[in-house]
Amino acid sequence: MGGVPALRWDDPPEGPVIALLDQRCLPSEEVELVCTDVPALVDAVQSLAVRGAPLLGIAGAYGVALAAARGFDVEEAAVQLSGARPTAVNLAYGVARARDAHRAALRDGAGPQGAAQAALEAARRLHAEDAEASAQMAGHGLRLLQELLPGGGFRLLTHCNTGALVSGGEGTALGVIAAAHRARELRRLWVDETRPLLQGARLTAYEAARAGMPYTLLSDSAAGSLFSAGEVDAVLVGADRIAADGSVANKVGSYPLAVLARYHHVPFVVVAPTTTVDLSTPDGASIEVEQRPGHEVTELPGAAAGTPVAPLGTQAYNPAFDVTPPELLTAIVTENGVVSPVTGAGLAELCNRSRSGNGMMSI
Amino acid sequence: MGGVPALRWDDPPEGPVIALLDQRCLPSEEVELVCTDVPALVDAVQSLAVRGAPLLGIAGAYGVALAAARGFDVEEAAVQLSGARPTAVNLAYGVARARDAHRAALRDGAGPQGAAQAALEAARRLHAEDAEASAQMAGHGLRLLQELLPGGGFRLLTHCNTGALVSGGEGTALGVIAAAHRARELRRLWVDETRPLLQGARLTAYEAARAGMPYTLLSDSAAGSLFSAGEVDAVLVGADRIAADGSVANKVGSYPLAVLARYHHVPFVVVAPTTTVDLSTPDGASIEVEQRPGHEVTELPGAAAGTPVAPLGTQAYNPAFDVTPPELLTAIVTENGVVSPVTGAGLAELCNRSRSGNGMMSI
Repeated sequence: MGGVPALRWDDPPEGPVIALLDQRCLPSEEVELVCTDVPALVDAVQSLAVRGAPLLGIAGAYGVALAAARGFDVEEAAVQLSGARPTAVNLAYGVARARDAHRAALRDGAGPQGAAQAALEAARRLHAEDAEASAQMAGHGLRLLQELLPGGGFRLLTHCNTGALVSGGEGTALGVIAAAHRARELRRLWVDETRPLLQGARLTAYEAARAGMPYTLLSDSAAGSLFSAGEVDAVLVGADRIAADGSVANKVGSYPLAVLARYHHVPFVVVAPTTTVDLSTPDGASIEVEQRPGHEVTELPGAAAGTPVAPLGTQAYNPAFDVTPPELLTAIVTENGVVSPVTGAGLAELCNRSRSGNGMMSI
Repeated sequence: MGGVPALRWDDPPEGPVIALLDQRCLPSEEVELVCTDVPALVDAVQSLAVRGAPLLGIAGAYGVALAAARGFDVEEAAVQLSGARPTAVNLAYGVARARDAHRAALRDGAGPQGAAQAALEAARRLHAEDAEASAQMAGHGLRLLQELLPGGGFRLLTHCNTGALVSGGEGTALGVIAAAHRARELRRLWVDETRPLLQGARLTAYEAARAGMPYTLLSDSAAGSLFSAGEVDAVLVGADRIAADGSVANKVGSYPLAVLARYHHVPFVVVAPTTTVDLSTPDGASIEVEQRPGHEVTELPGAAAGTPVAPLGTQAYNPAFDVTPPELLTAIVTENGVVSPVTGAGLAELCNRSRSGNGMMSI
């Protein structure tokens, strides 16, 4: 994607910073948000200025590097960053990668500057790995679609935003969709608007328009009409945490799509790097789901924030994620290959391959 | 419901008018929209200032009476009004009731004034019948819930708005819910916000708050999480057209709820007067679904209308309704009783009982 990158590390004379494309302002404005310390980054994470599982991991790692480079308490920064959003496991993973590199450097006798440099290198490595993982997922995902839908001309439905805005590369589900588009296999991309914060309308439509994809936006619950009409060949979504049994926590609204897909015999595919798999969470019931503030539902979003749409005093139920059990998944696509059918054993095998293969650390 | 009525006929010295509570301004303002002719009423119908299946029927009948009273061409007015929204069959039904009364009066030798009076009386009769039908549906619906959920303390999910704002009485699905609340049987009302026009957030929450119900608002796709958590005992919705086979066209988003309800073994109940049943539409596939303008999805709603949320040029898929097949329905509740399981024969029997019983005309 051209234009402003989703995240970049900069090191001007005044000291290092993390510059983020403020995703709250898209698609109308491309604004960079410059974080000079960890509290600013935590605020950007919690307010969704920066969001999306893989990018949160990268942001977390650079956040640790920022604390180290500016001489703040690295261990405390790691705790603050890891806890900024409870469901997204990549955030904790990225933080741990940079913190562990920092700890190891200190243990090996490096001074503060050397340890800070080690943390920054770990963040850069994660960033590069994520870009590479995107490309690998795109390849595996496209091959899977070609197997599942041999007729070609895919009509794909996606939810939330999973593209270049959330990744060092082209993203997860939207990365696969972009590969299908380049292969001239994408007939239609159906974009769920994704209430309450409209990441589909604001971000996925923005990326799809820039890439020249044939896309159409819809209210989340209009997806049912598309399934009824036989207009959806497959559903592709990302993930914020995958439990050891293959249960997938993803943006709220994913689970209803999985149930609709099952009812209509349409493949439901999750695309996520193995860093999203958390083998220490045994099952879906053990995933902590972040509850977001009610005003995201009771007030208009974006430019009109603060304008009530419901009577004053209205209570809202606003989970950020829902959990789809493995039996509703057709496949999980990772950078190391595809698990299908989704089982705990298959998932563990893929993760072990990954973590031994490229020396990733456990969190 | 106190305050401004959803619709009233007024006859000041300047000539008769139809005064509507402009539902686009709720819940922040209670504004009356005064229609002095049929084009103004057609505009109010198409812009959803007045909406909801039963109320559209009443508005259509008064519209014919207005044309007659003001000396416009009644037959032409009836055609314009009937076609204002294609899916809602009550509209055509109400128009036909008043037009047939007008025709009959002319045939019997009445002058223009007498025929206009006959049309007005037909509209008033329909209005009164609808209030009575509400009360009957509330009674039948409450008894059905008590049978389906003998434990009491119902946690009910509803979609769109089906209360006093759409009826001469307390409404359809929300009328049943209000009866449950009065019977101290309503533990929680889950209110789907109902994108894109937020009738749930703006209108159902407004009615629920006024009635003192324990209600909670949610994004439409968060309903999946409620089902997963076992927090929904039954789903109650209205209908805009019911085909002869029992297929139900209702606000888009109803069908995904029906699929979720089936997957979770939760009753899915439709509440509608027999005037919503269109025996001349054989099945779901024959129901014409109104496609609404894309800007309802690509721009913010209500007070912020015109503010884009998606990139300029974004195409949207925006069906106003979806169709739920009879096999996903637990029951249809009408003023004449309950059909369960939903079959074409059961539905026809109920409608015949109604139409012979109170002398309703066919459309």
